[in-house]
Amino acid sequence: MNQLSTGRPRLVIHDPTLRDGHHAVRHVLGREQLRGYASAADAAGVPVVEVGHGNGLGASSLQVGRAALSDDEMLTVVREALPNSKMGVFMLPGWGTARDLRRALDHGADVVRLGAHCTESDLTERHLGFLRDLGAEAQGLLLMSHMADPGRLAKECLRMEEYGATAVGIFDSSGHYLPPDVTERITAIVETVSVPVIFHGHNNLGMAVANSVAAAQAGAQVIDACARGFGAGAGNTQLEVVVPVLERMGFATGIDLYALLDAADLAGRTLMPAPPTIDSVSLVSGLAGVFSGFKTPVLDIARREGVDPRDVFFELGRRQAVAGQEDLIVDVALELAERRA
Amino acid sequence: MNQLSTGRPRLVIHDPTLRDGHHAVRHVLGREQLRGYASAADAAGVPVVEVGHGNGLGASSLQVGRAALSDDEMLTVVREALPNSKMGVFMLPGWGTARDLRRALDHGADVVRLGAHCTESDLTERHLGFLRDLGAEAQGLLLMSHMADPGRLAKECLRMEEYGATAVGIFDSSGHYLPPDVTERITAIVETVSVPVIFHGHNNLGMAVANSVAAAQAGAQVIDACARGFGAGAGNTQLEVVVPVLERMGFATGIDLYALLDAADLAGRTLMPAPPTIDSVSLVSGLAGVFSGFKTPVLDIARREGVDPRDVFFELGRRQAVAGQEDLIVDVALELAERRA
Repeated sequence: MNQLSTGRPRLVIHDPTLRDGHHAVRHVLGREQLRGYASAADAAGVPVVEVGHGNGLGASSLQVGRAALSDDEMLTVVREALPNSKMGVFMLPGWGTARDLRRALDHGADVVRLGAHCTESDLTERHLGFLRDLGAEAQGLLLMSHMADPGRLAKECLRMEEYGATAVGIFDSSGHYLPPDVTERITAIVETVSVPVIFHGHNNLGMAVANSVAAAQAGAQVIDACARGFGAGAGNTQLEVVVPVLERMGFATGIDLYALLDAADLAGRTLMPAPPTIDSVSLVSGLAGVFSGFKTPVLDIARREGVDPRDVFFELGRRQAVAGQEDLIVDVALELAERRA
Repeated sequence: MNQLSTGRPRLVIHDPTLRDGHHAVRHVLGREQLRGYASAADAAGVPVVEVGHGNGLGASSLQVGRAALSDDEMLTVVREALPNSKMGVFMLPGWGTARDLRRALDHGADVVRLGAHCTESDLTERHLGFLRDLGAEAQGLLLMSHMADPGRLAKECLRMEEYGATAVGIFDSSGHYLPPDVTERITAIVETVSVPVIFHGHNNLGMAVANSVAAAQAGAQVIDACARGFGAGAGNTQLEVVVPVLERMGFATGIDLYALLDAADLAGRTLMPAPPTIDSVSLVSGLAGVFSGFKTPVLDIARREGVDPRDVFFELGRRQAVAGQEDLIVDVALELAERRA
């Protein structure tokens, strides 16, 4: 494991505030907001600042929401605001293409992340290969990772390493994990791959900070976290909380605490109407392990069919519904309505 | 350990929403607010609902804030709203007296808690003895418990058991603990006393849920939690989150999840302007291990003396400042100002 001269294990904190946070404000952050936060994070020594539409490069659309700025505009503004930190981008193959990746690299993106459903790492092969050929830093991330067992996750991560990924890891997209789940999965991945391992948490069960600490203790070397937890639903791991907690647990992040608190305060004032909290819908979707993007359709359809949305979430969880299976929401709601009648 | 017929370890969830939450709204909850939430918690099967001024019986005053209702009024309203749940009260000797305890019992309080600084359990002796003689359920709680080592806490808890306490435990008043700290302390207490052990968490480091799980795993049998985390500063352990998490970890609470979510939603709508979040001041006071009641005077004095309030918190933590030592804030701020000049 990478060590500082202090002998403490070194972690890379990866900050997707300006990408994941976009989910919480319908992708409308403007130039001054991006510039202000990116500058503050850079001043604090945050190693990687990720920016973009919540769903990544190329995703701005009527279907998932149009961003206020184009990818080109966001990357230009943030690159200028990061004299020291690396700039990160995220892409889901299908939403974005090789052309989007090439333009992100032209704009000075240092860290390029490709995401895929936890059992579909093969969808990253072409793009990871392309990035490897260009010599870029390319990371492969598995979404909704609680839906696969530790062995399967390790196998999918190994495959992404073979495709050319320079780091691999998992998203807890539903915020479903408890610390022992994270320990088990990160351990399996760390034992299987030879590149650094990434953990990205969500707070639906109030465990984002504890899960991130568990990941680091199990050998993850890249920890994702957002200022004030700014992110979809119940939010992400809270950056300015997890950094001093990790330091207290014996890890080194290289981040200046007071400058980080200043960045978080700025984020609180300028990026969000209010920090994320755990409401009952976020909690239930986390318990059920359902894709957080299902929230709005579940609430709409449950109301229309006169069924309890919490029952719909738990049933979708039992059926292992994945993103894209919005049709299943209607099926489940109709069945619950019939069962009741 | 107490077991249900399921064989799962049984926990008693103790809900101080209507007492600790009072700190977040200057003690102004009215009759309809108390009645509504208490009824909903009772319907969910929450075993104990605690009510009162944030600082407990007899504390309503100009110095710490006058409550909208008298102790008598609060206890009358909540008792009527709890056909099934026990009613709890809290008292800090000094603020409240034996006369307050007697009146609370006359109003039908079932669980009476006495709090004392973590090294001053002897202050509970007279009142615990008085309650024991009346045959009441009496609990002894150590505040600011991170300021004493596990052995000392166990000794103070044993003393309270000898005074007559039917349960004993610790408050993480500053929200300073990480899970291993809780494991170590609860284990020491459980190994020393023969009555049930209580844990009361705060969320300053984002660890309230994880710490409460650690406490239960170490053998605590009473876990405190508040709807939406409603409580002082960064808030308490979030009730509707910790209950299903504990159930998933193998514990039994006897609480109905949907009714609990309904109660939490009601609390969110009717008790608080917004749920607690972790702001930078709460985070720093948690890291420093400083009494959360110092927040306002620290901010005021730091501004007046032109020093960084974060430095003041960390220095107060180094000096092990305790509640009542408000004079120390001025001393520290002046010293920091001089050192800078």
